[in-house]
Amino acid sequence: MTILEVQRARLRIAAQARRTPLVQSKWLSRIAGATVGLKLESLQKTNSFKFRGALNAVVARRDRNPPGLTRLVTASAGNHGRALAMAAESFRLPLVVFTPADAPTTKLRAIEEHGAELRADARDYDEAERLAKAFAVETGASFVSPYNDADVIAGAATIALELFEDLGHIDTILVPIGGGGLISGVAAAAKAIDPACRIIGVEAAQSCAFQTSLRAGRLVEIVPGPTLADGLGGNPDPETMTFSLIQRFVDEVTTVTEADIARAIAGLVEFEHLVAEGAGAVGVAALLAAGLDRHHGQVVTIVSGSNIDRSRLQAVLDASSAS
Amino acid sequence: MTILEVQRARLRIAAQARRTPLVQSKWLSRIAGATVGLKLESLQKTNSFKFRGALNAVVARRDRNPPGLTRLVTASAGNHGRALAMAAESFRLPLVVFTPADAPTTKLRAIEEHGAELRADARDYDEAERLAKAFAVETGASFVSPYNDADVIAGAATIALELFEDLGHIDTILVPIGGGGLISGVAAAAKAIDPACRIIGVEAAQSCAFQTSLRAGRLVEIVPGPTLADGLGGNPDPETMTFSLIQRFVDEVTTVTEADIARAIAGLVEFEHLVAEGAGAVGVAALLAAGLDRHHGQVVTIVSGSNIDRSRLQAVLDASSAS
Repeated sequence: MTILEVQRARLRIAAQARRTPLVQSKWLSRIAGATVGLKLESLQKTNSFKFRGALNAVVARRDRNPPGLTRLVTASAGNHGRALAMAAESFRLPLVVFTPADAPTTKLRAIEEHGAELRADARDYDEAERLAKAFAVETGASFVSPYNDADVIAGAATIALELFEDLGHIDTILVPIGGGGLISGVAAAAKAIDPACRIIGVEAAQSCAFQTSLRAGRLVEIVPGPTLADGLGGNPDPETMTFSLIQRFVDEVTTVTEADIARAIAGLVEFEHLVAEGAGAVGVAALLAAGLDRHHGQVVTIVSGSNIDRSRLQAVLDASSAS
Repeated sequence: MTILEVQRARLRIAAQARRTPLVQSKWLSRIAGATVGLKLESLQKTNSFKFRGALNAVVARRDRNPPGLTRLVTASAGNHGRALAMAAESFRLPLVVFTPADAPTTKLRAIEEHGAELRADARDYDEAERLAKAFAVETGASFVSPYNDADVIAGAATIALELFEDLGHIDTILVPIGGGGLISGVAAAAKAIDPACRIIGVEAAQSCAFQTSLRAGRLVEIVPGPTLADGLGGNPDPETMTFSLIQRFVDEVTTVTEADIARAIAGLVEFEHLVAEGAGAVGVAALLAAGLDRHHGQVVTIVSGSNIDRSRLQAVLDASSAS
């Protein structure tokens, strides 16, 4: 991915994606011993950074295809599915979404509301992805992976352009890692702008596929445990292009415990009056876990989404005020 | 106040105040039968719209005075006090803040952290205001009222400029009323831009000084009860210029119950993943209370702040999920 592709992505998504705010956090700055900014992709459309990549993928495919011939398919009951459904709807492009049969009804409904066709009968996410890819081969629809897709990655990378415009200089960016689409894009773009900018990936300790794989020097399969950062759990596609991008552009991958994530979610509510989902709070969790004076200069973390159920948020708040 | 003064305010605050996002709410749009946008002043610096007016007042006074001669004084332990402290700090202007002796320590500390001098020994807010005004007369410092101040009102009015730029056309704006500074500015500016734009003020039913006074045709004293919208409670300054602005520019003042406010706070967390303080949620509360199809076209409400204690937020969430 070149910086030119990121600039193109930016033009493609400018009219519809939100330029999200960057807010400096006094709370975290004190703890980190550095100036800490929060990039609020939690306020992006669909409440997740995924809208950037989904929209870029939709527009790029439409531009590459003859008029009227773009059909899309994906596998996701989560933020990507919802974001792609909204993006496809706005260009009136047909989209089929494969999901596990046991995906939460509210999430399925949110996808259907944007006019996408649901196929919710896979055993698990892996089967949903296989079915989606088979559907793409059979029908000629274009498969849009949640992270293993150059357009999706370039869309996410537009966040880095906004960060450097807002701040001028950035010492460190902490980025959540699930499938690695967000960090691949942000790291590649940030290093193109300033090779000295340090990129730290953050995984849930319960599901640290990339930290493990980086140690092994190849993508290895892990056995993921359940995590509050549900958007990050699981193994990535064994063929994912994000692994080599992470090898090349990411300086370090760290992990956070479930207790760290819960403290981060509760602290964001208490001190910044912000709602974040678990996956969106892992960068903050890493700052809290690292403790005093582990950073310097201007640090940024991307609060990647806010799609957390109210009952889960309440449980986190109640548990952390009891402790 | 003229639209020119609002434009001037905008230039004065542009470098430091945040242009806050406007987000359309699917949840509220469905309920209201209209397109409902939320202007997120909850994401303004100091987490409240008050920063706009405070900053404008600081810059305007500095510009009017000979260099080195601007000293400021106010009375507020709340959002205005904190906002004015931050604004004064950024121009290194001395500020004295009078507050009631029983103001919460966390709020007093937030004011002190910005370098303001605290005088926290008044019996109540009214006494703090009297002391602040007396201090101004004695020392030549400039008293900056939280709402009864042309510069503060013009700063708040800049919100209306942003709303019309973002939306082009607006049918209705719902605005919280406490001392009336926010609604005076927004209403005056909105009517200058489009006289057909309907302005609805929203008070807590427990403390509806302006609804009562509008009926009487003069400012009358009420006996305020306690409210979740603590930023709005109490009687305004009997001399306040906001009353005649409200008489002239506001189409209607409505009230919301404590149950409405609690539902609004909980609903914003659940459906929009946003934290709002009680005062910031009264516009949403009014939409929920009015119910289906009471509005049309483009409606906006200003979520004026998010400074709510975590324990209070938890109590609201817990109570509303039990019901």
